[in-house]
Amino acid sequence: MNLVLIPALPPNGVLTLTGRQARHLREVLRAGPGSRVRIGVEDGPTGTGSVTAVGSDAVTLTCTLKFPRPERPRLDLLLAVPRPKVLKRLWAQLAALGVGQIILTNASRVERPYFDTHVLEPGVYRPLLIEGLEQAKDTRVPAVSVHRQFRKLVEDDLATLTDARVRLIADPGASTSLHTALAGAGNGRVVIAVGPEGGWNDFERGLLAAHGFAPVSMGARTLRTDTACVALLALAHAALGGRG
Amino acid sequence: MNLVLIPALPPNGVLTLTGRQARHLREVLRAGPGSRVRIGVEDGPTGTGSVTAVGSDAVTLTCTLKFPRPERPRLDLLLAVPRPKVLKRLWAQLAALGVGQIILTNASRVERPYFDTHVLEPGVYRPLLIEGLEQAKDTRVPAVSVHRQFRKLVEDDLATLTDARVRLIADPGASTSLHTALAGAGNGRVVIAVGPEGGWNDFERGLLAAHGFAPVSMGARTLRTDTACVALLALAHAALGGRG
Repeated sequence: MNLVLIPALPPNGVLTLTGRQARHLREVLRAGPGSRVRIGVEDGPTGTGSVTAVGSDAVTLTCTLKFPRPERPRLDLLLAVPRPKVLKRLWAQLAALGVGQIILTNASRVERPYFDTHVLEPGVYRPLLIEGLEQAKDTRVPAVSVHRQFRKLVEDDLATLTDARVRLIADPGASTSLHTALAGAGNGRVVIAVGPEGGWNDFERGLLAAHGFAPVSMGARTLRTDTACVALLALAHAALGGRG
Repeated sequence: MNLVLIPALPPNGVLTLTGRQARHLREVLRAGPGSRVRIGVEDGPTGTGSVTAVGSDAVTLTCTLKFPRPERPRLDLLLAVPRPKVLKRLWAQLAALGVGQIILTNASRVERPYFDTHVLEPGVYRPLLIEGLEQAKDTRVPAVSVHRQFRKLVEDDLATLTDARVRLIADPGASTSLHTALAGAGNGRVVIAVGPEGGWNDFERGLLAAHGFAPVSMGARTLRTDTACVALLALAHAALGGRG
């Protein structure tokens, strides 16, 4: 944890942490009175907290928030729902790498039971997103939406979910590299589509193409969905100038 | 599994698969007589297998290996031993992304129990490396070595483990980007050092610098070791022209 992310800071700046965050401060950071830690408010500014008391259940800090809230990451991700085990591993990593909107969709090669899993419930994934943000010192919580109807998503809902004008689809057979495709992306938002393990079917690929998704390649190696998403976000942020 | 990786192919080209690989062919790929699958020999060539029989325990194929063995990945990784849970997740991903040599080392901020874990045993990590290669359709098994003495590793052993002339160290404070550092790397091998969660200490950083490791940045966000390694390998391969 490189930043303690909290829902809100009381007006007097006095923060009492309990549970996981208090335990982390006590046991991992070995914080005592006078210790300073980085604090952030969900979707808000960041600053510093100075520990005033450490108890067995709670840690109390006095906080000031002097840095403006970070920019929202410029990348959105349109992802066919992966296996629950893979998705569970992905949440924190996506938040740490930086994503504005995570759009999860059905596809013909997404297995039906993937939708009936607890890893699609906010109660499960939100703490994982927070964990990723605390790792990366960010406060901008990715927005998440889940869509059971691929066609309705692409035709009706996508334009309201993301205003990204650059739309890309990861495709091992593409001749354009991700780097080349993003070189001219300007300063606007970018959305990248990643298919299910077996790939999009022809209808899905055609519908995405008809809605402006241009194929980009990440090289010859076929990667597991979680590895592919991490690699893709790292490469895209680097190409957009945020990393690399 | 996008390639079935086997230790060796009998001279007559007739291969009998059992266990995990037979099960995958039967249950996931639903292979029957006549089905064709991609075959590779560990550290050897690749080709095609044609299924001749599917039994309850075994699948038999006739194989021809007509493609030369893939190039060894140009990247080596010098990694401070991460938490066992993180390392377990990493093995398959490292092999899938492509690494020549995985050099695991002690460091002052590596906790002692990390060395007493089964994830450092070949019996545990080798199947995970194979799984990653089968995903990425590669046959070149990363070489792995584990070093309890950091100083001895850097001063005495490193030059025999990797002949990489370009030596880099991931460092959030570096002013040179990974992409810039690799732009002039030529065609030789590259080794990149990744520290423990709390970072290298001053002695370790100094020793690496004295042995030619130049700091490179991957952007402002602090990433968990497994996310950082995947991002780093993806970015490095892209910069070297193998991906991106």
